[in-house]
Amino acid sequence: MALDLEKMGIAAREAAFKLAQLSTEQKNEILKAMAQALVDNTAAIIAANQVDLEKATEMKSSFVDRLTLDEARIKDIAEGLRQVAALPDPIGNVDKGWINQDGLQIVQRRVPLGVVGMIYEARPNVTVDAAGLCFKSGNAVILRGGKEALATNIKLAEVLQQVLVENGIAKEAIQIITETSHQVAEKFMQLNGYLDVLIPRGSARLIQTVIQKATVPVIETGAGNCHVYVDSQADLAMAEKIVVNAKCQRPSVCNAAETLVVHADVAEEFLPQVAKALAKYNVELRGDARTCEILGDAAVPATERDWDTEYNDYILAVKVVDTLTEAIVHINTHNTKHSEAIVTDSYANGQRFVNEVDASSVYINASTRFTDGFVFGFGAEIGISTQKLHARGPMGLEALTTTKYVISGQGQIR
Amino acid sequence: MALDLEKMGIAAREAAFKLAQLSTEQKNEILKAMAQALVDNTAAIIAANQVDLEKATEMKSSFVDRLTLDEARIKDIAEGLRQVAALPDPIGNVDKGWINQDGLQIVQRRVPLGVVGMIYEARPNVTVDAAGLCFKSGNAVILRGGKEALATNIKLAEVLQQVLVENGIAKEAIQIITETSHQVAEKFMQLNGYLDVLIPRGSARLIQTVIQKATVPVIETGAGNCHVYVDSQADLAMAEKIVVNAKCQRPSVCNAAETLVVHADVAEEFLPQVAKALAKYNVELRGDARTCEILGDAAVPATERDWDTEYNDYILAVKVVDTLTEAIVHINTHNTKHSEAIVTDSYANGQRFVNEVDASSVYINASTRFTDGFVFGFGAEIGISTQKLHARGPMGLEALTTTKYVISGQGQIR
Repeated sequence: MALDLEKMGIAAREAAFKLAQLSTEQKNEILKAMAQALVDNTAAIIAANQVDLEKATEMKSSFVDRLTLDEARIKDIAEGLRQVAALPDPIGNVDKGWINQDGLQIVQRRVPLGVVGMIYEARPNVTVDAAGLCFKSGNAVILRGGKEALATNIKLAEVLQQVLVENGIAKEAIQIITETSHQVAEKFMQLNGYLDVLIPRGSARLIQTVIQKATVPVIETGAGNCHVYVDSQADLAMAEKIVVNAKCQRPSVCNAAETLVVHADVAEEFLPQVAKALAKYNVELRGDARTCEILGDAAVPATERDWDTEYNDYILAVKVVDTLTEAIVHINTHNTKHSEAIVTDSYANGQRFVNEVDASSVYINASTRFTDGFVFGFGAEIGISTQKLHARGPMGLEALTTTKYVISGQGQIR
Repeated sequence: MALDLEKMGIAAREAAFKLAQLSTEQKNEILKAMAQALVDNTAAIIAANQVDLEKATEMKSSFVDRLTLDEARIKDIAEGLRQVAALPDPIGNVDKGWINQDGLQIVQRRVPLGVVGMIYEARPNVTVDAAGLCFKSGNAVILRGGKEALATNIKLAEVLQQVLVENGIAKEAIQIITETSHQVAEKFMQLNGYLDVLIPRGSARLIQTVIQKATVPVIETGAGNCHVYVDSQADLAMAEKIVVNAKCQRPSVCNAAETLVVHADVAEEFLPQVAKALAKYNVELRGDARTCEILGDAAVPATERDWDTEYNDYILAVKVVDTLTEAIVHINTHNTKHSEAIVTDSYANGQRFVNEVDASSVYINASTRFTDGFVFGFGAEIGISTQKLHARGPMGLEALTTTKYVISGQGQIR
């Protein structure tokens, strides 16, 4: 390979050192200048995007749609950078501080991670979003996007880097891996000593590859096999609304529901009701034996595999349980620890569900679709962590920081 | 291999589910019962330890010392469990809570990680310490200690498991890997889906192996190439005291200093002074050219490798720099991001040092030896993280937890 990843890593580390010392105001001004530069370079960006689109003629329309940039989308992406500029800066915040038994003043201070690696698919908006969030949080970033978006990503990075240079910052604060072979990707995942974290975003397969191959610290994101459990004590009108929303409002995303679990006490009443509502969206129902018995032709039999499948489509697995415990065990066995909801009017059942279900986000009487950095109020999202280390659930700017203990003494020794 | 790690993982996960629901009082009572059980089984533990010691006749005395358990040490280990029982329980604490724009009450609650894996060397006290800290924080633990301590570890685990069973808890909450082959260790590092985190504790080599082989999330611990920088504005009497303490008080540990960096303005005065003080401990000084010129026979020339070496011994590398910037660059280039100290009376230099040096713990006018969970006031320590994800610096009970968002709605949909 021609590409020298180690050299990129060294340059990123050097840039990160400088970024960590920038003031919030400096960072915000540069982010706003980047937004303006994107708008100013709309024609050049669309031209680069055209190069990618011409090669993507055989792709699915949804793929091409995500790859395509037009004037309106570039405006939106630029607006995203302005929003990041407007967010509070986590760097320098003090989480805790105390004086220890030796009289040392110990202060835990938020600092940037250093160098962030991102691996993602052919979505050029992620290039700018990630660059913006990393920059705001004082991190250098190395981006490895899908090969189908390479020309677009290179142009986008060029525009951002130009702004960096104009502001006296090394352009290596934002770098693109321009060689998209698997060999280079694998070496990237093993760039220990340069990458402080690697965040994969995209398909379950991409994320699994990173987990298997990476030797640098990884934050696992995205996979969402989410459930809605309709309890024996549920308000069934509310349950219907929540199930339809969780499944149909945007089925392609990770916080959409994939399995409906229904208590036997309400199954005969609720299942036909919700099946009718879901039929308006042509949702295919894959039920266990009891569900199929109740719904007849309106459902097809589910296989064991269905309980573990993230459809990202208008398909819903359905299971009837006799107890809350059975529901919790089913969910904990099959979920991806992303988002889980109970619909119930029982205080005790709601408490048990949120206490015992293992997931980043557990809901009582609300749709799983709310698991999102913007909806949660973080103002941004670099991804949704489905692992337990460092960050869990939607990740905003703070997830891109770490801490350092600053200890002030007067000559203390041990 | 005969050992079924997956089965151990399943059992651990099931045990973890129950542990997460225990009250603080239940956990504390069990920890105290464990402490008593260790004391009550002193004879049996010493007998098991004897089996290990008989095989360790060819080992270094420091190794044998760490492996040895006697009545006093077992009492100390039991006392450690009682101290863990007395610590505040992080589980259930709410870090943050707010109402979002949709009227959802979002609460970020501390929960156990789930299943913790530990890989460590032949130090039986770590077996009990780790089991106690994981239990208190509601985690199941799978322990893989050094093979030289196997008989001891099995007996210690048996004693602890007996207490678990007497209290109605699955003994798989604390498990020992009884087959100490590399093949099993490697499979352990790749037990995805069962291990929520793997914490290696021990030599740099052990930790590097885990980083290279593990596919589960890892917290890197321990390696400490720590520096003391004596600034041009330093109080040289204080500097001498701090350097001697950081190097000599306990050279074998990770927060001991390995390199002294001295500003040229004070080198001629300070180096002979500190060399004299260090000579009392027979510290070997390995200096750069300027150091050797000043110290003559009192130092030997350092090689490039010395700047990257964690001696863990009575050896100190010494470098003279012309500027604070040169000191910071040297430290950031060679350190392991553990603990770094400046001795100075300059406010500006102190601020620059703590802002720009990249380490878990940065000190002004105090010894690097203070980086320690007990000294920091955490009441316990599962290790010292030298990575930036999840936890950085000394890790107490909270580092063994993650969070879950609990979201209470009234039927909200998106």
